Amino acid sequence: MLSKNKLKYIQSLHQKKYRQQQGAFLVEGAKSVQEVLQSGFAVELVVATEVFYKENAHLTDHQRTPVEIASVADLERAGTLESNNAALAVVRTKENRPLLAEPGEIALILDDVRDPGNLGTILRIADWYGVQKILCSETTADVYNPKVISASKGSFTRVDWWYGDIVSVLDQLAGSSGQAVYGAFLDGEDVHQLAASRAGGYLIMGNESNGIRPAVAQYVTKRVTIPRYGEAESLNVGIATAVLLDNIRQRTS
Amino acid sequence: MLSKNKLKYIQSLHQKKYRQQQGAFLVEGAKSVQEVLQSGFAVELVVATEVFYKENAHLTDHQRTPVEIASVADLERAGTLESNNAALAVVRTKENRPLLAEPGEIALILDDVRDPGNLGTILRIADWYGVQKILCSETTADVYNPKVISASKGSFTRVDWWYGDIVSVLDQLAGSSGQAVYGAFLDGEDVHQLAASRAGGYLIMGNESNGIRPAVAQYVTKRVTIPRYGEAESLNVGIATAVLLDNIRQRTS
Repeated sequence: MLSKNKLKYIQSLHQKKYRQQQGAFLVEGAKSVQEVLQSGFAVELVVATEVFYKENAHLTDHQRTPVEIASVADLERAGTLESNNAALAVVRTKENRPLLAEPGEIALILDDVRDPGNLGTILRIADWYGVQKILCSETTADVYNPKVISASKGSFTRVDWWYGDIVSVLDQLAGSSGQAVYGAFLDGEDVHQLAASRAGGYLIMGNESNGIRPAVAQYVTKRVTIPRYGEAESLNVGIATAVLLDNIRQRTS
Repeated sequence: MLSKNKLKYIQSLHQKKYRQQQGAFLVEGAKSVQEVLQSGFAVELVVATEVFYKENAHLTDHQRTPVEIASVADLERAGTLESNNAALAVVRTKENRPLLAEPGEIALILDDVRDPGNLGTILRIADWYGVQKILCSETTADVYNPKVISASKGSFTRVDWWYGDIVSVLDQLAGSSGQAVYGAFLDGEDVHQLAASRAGGYLIMGNESNGIRPAVAQYVTKRVTIPRYGEAESLNVGIATAVLLDNIRQRTS
């Protein structure tokens, strides 16, 4: 049985304010909890059904992670998932350390991507395409939001992020690195014709409705566009990230 | 004010059983209602706020579409969206007519794609990439589900679909058409190396967890795979559809 205090503490982590105060976030569901237990993250507590605990004791015992056995009803009460018959973990957030693309590396920059589902999908896509660094504007959805963590399907354990003033990062990079700064626009160069540089660099994706802000757009060195063959007005930002990374990768590998 | 009977009728269309019985489905939100009013669909009724009605009377008057003015509260009670301050439309479903790819055309085949959000996203992607025909296994999510219609962002008005026995369609096509039958697998040919045929054909996408069924897979003439550069186990089926269509298009245009 979860104590009332623990239940309250876990529930408080549904909200960004308390995640920041406590320096902790939630990971939910069998697969994600298994992945976080095998990652570099510090896991504070696992709440698990007896079945999940028995099948995964090697993972928790190894790190001497505290485990509380709970019913499915308690798990669902504590967490955010509609159904969870396995486990949730309370995990320490990471230090917010600056990230830059090394020579030859592609990093993502997210300028005000607001939807947690989109951000989670972008983490998964980044992980598929071997992108390990994501620089986020402060207005981008909180990566520790349980919806982001769920949608990332475990990829949050393999991708790094930083939140801060992306304009000043871009300003410091400008002209100095020889790296490309790709930006997704509706009126850029056809990405199928792109002569991508092997020097690596950054791909900037903008807000779901408004795209990349002018203050950020001024640092873009290659405006790129996914060619359209039909009539849809736009593609979702997650879809566009995947198609652009696929094109950059196939032109630089 | 919506009468109790109309409210009940509209609410019944949240369920597939009643959509089939009535031959009608729901379209919700300003943008989608505007698009359906300008499409070939027969609109039975529009329920709109006074503001939406006034701004869009040219669309409803043109077809003499019956309009009921309603409050935002009534709209939200009748429909499925959490917030809708504009309109919803009750629209006649289309006849389920067989579809085949013409020479040079690419059509999609969905084998048991279950999630309505994924199906809606796939409609939007199809529309972006100029794919106008989608053949769906009977177990694929119902295209008239309000979540599909919403997620398609109006693209349901520009893409055609058919539900039926895709195995017997593939069996009839086999060998006769000279068209390609691409199938998405985790162990196929690298799609970046694909020599795509200009003869057109079909791209088959499978179930979110289990992929393409063996009974369907036997008709695939080109097994294709999106190369992975990182560690994520898989890509979402909508994302994979976009990346594959992007590759097929850039190799055949």
